[in-house]
Amino acid sequence: MGRIKARTLSGFMELLPARQAQFERVRDTLAKTYELYGFTPLDTPVIESSEVLLAKAGGETEKQIYRFTKGDSDLALRFDLTVPLAKYVALHQNELAFPFRRYQIGKVYRGERAQRGRFREFYQADIDVIGDGALDIINEAEIPAIIYKTFTSLGLERFRIRLNNRKILNGLFAVLGLTERAGDVMRTIDKLDKIGPEKVKTILVEDFSVPAAAADRLLAVIQSEDPLAAVESFQGKDETFDLGVAELSTVVKYLGDFGVPADHFAVDLTIARGLDYYTGTVYETVLLDHPEVGSVCSGGRYDNLAEYYTEKKLPGVGISIGLTRLFYVLQEQGMLNEALPTAPADVLVLPMTDDLSPAIAFATACRAAGVRAQLYTEPKKFKAKMNYADKLGVPFVAFLGEDEVRDGVVSLKDMVSGEQEKVALSEAPGWLRKRVEERSAGAPIRE
Amino acid sequence: MGRIKARTLSGFMELLPARQAQFERVRDTLAKTYELYGFTPLDTPVIESSEVLLAKAGGETEKQIYRFTKGDSDLALRFDLTVPLAKYVALHQNELAFPFRRYQIGKVYRGERAQRGRFREFYQADIDVIGDGALDIINEAEIPAIIYKTFTSLGLERFRIRLNNRKILNGLFAVLGLTERAGDVMRTIDKLDKIGPEKVKTILVEDFSVPAAAADRLLAVIQSEDPLAAVESFQGKDETFDLGVAELSTVVKYLGDFGVPADHFAVDLTIARGLDYYTGTVYETVLLDHPEVGSVCSGGRYDNLAEYYTEKKLPGVGISIGLTRLFYVLQEQGMLNEALPTAPADVLVLPMTDDLSPAIAFATACRAAGVRAQLYTEPKKFKAKMNYADKLGVPFVAFLGEDEVRDGVVSLKDMVSGEQEKVALSEAPGWLRKRVEERSAGAPIRE
Repeated sequence: MGRIKARTLSGFMELLPARQAQFERVRDTLAKTYELYGFTPLDTPVIESSEVLLAKAGGETEKQIYRFTKGDSDLALRFDLTVPLAKYVALHQNELAFPFRRYQIGKVYRGERAQRGRFREFYQADIDVIGDGALDIINEAEIPAIIYKTFTSLGLERFRIRLNNRKILNGLFAVLGLTERAGDVMRTIDKLDKIGPEKVKTILVEDFSVPAAAADRLLAVIQSEDPLAAVESFQGKDETFDLGVAELSTVVKYLGDFGVPADHFAVDLTIARGLDYYTGTVYETVLLDHPEVGSVCSGGRYDNLAEYYTEKKLPGVGISIGLTRLFYVLQEQGMLNEALPTAPADVLVLPMTDDLSPAIAFATACRAAGVRAQLYTEPKKFKAKMNYADKLGVPFVAFLGEDEVRDGVVSLKDMVSGEQEKVALSEAPGWLRKRVEERSAGAPIRE
Repeated sequence: MGRIKARTLSGFMELLPARQAQFERVRDTLAKTYELYGFTPLDTPVIESSEVLLAKAGGETEKQIYRFTKGDSDLALRFDLTVPLAKYVALHQNELAFPFRRYQIGKVYRGERAQRGRFREFYQADIDVIGDGALDIINEAEIPAIIYKTFTSLGLERFRIRLNNRKILNGLFAVLGLTERAGDVMRTIDKLDKIGPEKVKTILVEDFSVPAAAADRLLAVIQSEDPLAAVESFQGKDETFDLGVAELSTVVKYLGDFGVPADHFAVDLTIARGLDYYTGTVYETVLLDHPEVGSVCSGGRYDNLAEYYTEKKLPGVGISIGLTRLFYVLQEQGMLNEALPTAPADVLVLPMTDDLSPAIAFATACRAAGVRAQLYTEPKKFKAKMNYADKLGVPFVAFLGEDEVRDGVVSLKDMVSGEQEKVALSEAPGWLRKRVEERSAGAPIRE
């Protein structure tokens, strides 16, 4: 028959089983951590009406969107988890309790140019806290604590959370008379890391007519080693600025109570995170040994989640992890903890008798004890069976031959140490469970 | 500003938080059970090339597919998890260990006519065991054990797994001289439940010229109270038939060893499960109190998973649960276990002092102990705070006022019993954890 070549689309991550097991472990860690902070899991459709999904979008985003018609419907695949959240909250506002804390780990779609490490289908892992009209500043202080807990739970230590407050930037611009050029100035500041302060100043002065003195003052403040001290000279001149400083100070004050060590966060006045959306604290998270990756967890405080759908004012604060890209980077850097088992089973049960009943009964007992057991009954040579066990990477193999069945024991082989011992059938599931738990202890990532 | 009406497309399930928590519990139960049997989780793209996805499809299926172009690419959304599995196995055949056991719980898309209880985006929860050229019969015997364990883990007892073997049906047709009319006969038999044996016989005789005597014999056998005894008179006449009987007997023999009680399965020779695909054991699962729902878990043995992609012979056996529809039915029938907590947090922490540090420290300690804690600091009246706790359904509220902070205790209120007691700060996380575990014990479904 004529055959079609099996292939997976470029830009779509499809993992082999062991890798997938590692991915699941990372994803589960994110979910479990988010849940510790009282976030409820949501699951919204991948497909939405284009009218709803693109209420706000424009420009570059719109070009990347997977949009199509089915019957009379103009449909699109979600390109982030924020717009579906806005729709969800607007739609169900009367049924939700505010503050509404949700997490969502789901696939989103962007038809970007195919490129190594860039994905067209990728997971985002988002949390957001949405208030009804108002939202206490403590929520902005808690976010870095969640980032810290998430990354340390994954096994990472070498990261830093960068904080800023958009009110400080906007206030600075006001004091320096740059409010009308705020967008241009912000975009230019965003390039600091890449082009350095000299060039930033040149652009500010020459392209955007910022007075040289103002550019110098701005650069001096935002690049200061001690930003919270440096901003003091500006206080009392602009309300927004003062509020921003107060908010940032509050956030920093509470971070210690939340258990975030001082060396894991830093105020960084150069962080803007886009032009319009954020209005208070903003966050970035960088891997200290891999700054080239950019921020692996970003977000901030916004005033109006769902203004395109409802007149209800819904301020919030949230962060997003680009999970697929993060996983890809960790894999490329060899940082996935290969010591943790990735096999689908904890024990491979090999019956060595014609009657399979004892082996089936043993596998059933293992499962009842929470031990993942696979029966292997294919009529292969012993060596092929052991090769199979090796290829899967199962930690233990159980042999049940005539002798074992007669004596009410099972021979258990540790596939790592090569050691083998006979254990009473009744005790074997517990024996396995204990060892499997020991072997599974550890974080999914290793620095 | 002009606003867009927030809405979710018809045929797309989007749940409120408490319902979503119940859905997650059902999904997690399926995943955990599948894992106990040594299945590895897979995650394949939602979008595939149309050429690949539609290699086999045709007719009704093709009409329902979400298909579109992006740039030069002709793309489609997966409509089941079997075709992506076939593609995956064909593509990665040299890297996989066979038998390859995978589970996948993922969304699939079919643009069906919108109808109550019918979904266009829905989860399937599939397991399959794929052999390389051959696959031992024990795998066919294990499947009902997995179905049994899955449904009992969910909390269901009132269900029955129906078994048949396609070789028996095909053999019967051969013995009765009906092989050339096998398709028509099978389709007619499939209507037995709906139209009864009289009408089935009439159709067989009048429409498909089946001799009346053959129709009688066929109906007598497949409707027999003791099918395995009834088929004995046909043995020795057709090889396929004899093989089918042997396979079915083996499957039934081992079911006891696998721990499936006799009243939870039944041989039913009327089950066909479609015309072409299955070649051995076939399965259906019915809820005894809701037969109108039809089979909630079906599947069978097939000879050639990926013939459209590879010349490698890949026999397998698998089952699929239509998770979204099953959940919908259980919800409609009021069978979700409402006694289990659905709140996003185990404890809502209410600081009653201006300094939030003690409350933050307590929430942090709870989280370190695995207790899901939410800080509530919005400046609301006490009653509004308690209303919020009620609306979320949190099992416990923690009060930290001046007295508590001074005494190193926290007041914990059980929101179900209404009782409140003071517990030492150091002991409170453990106190909560124990009670939350007790309250979370129980299956997601209640009959």
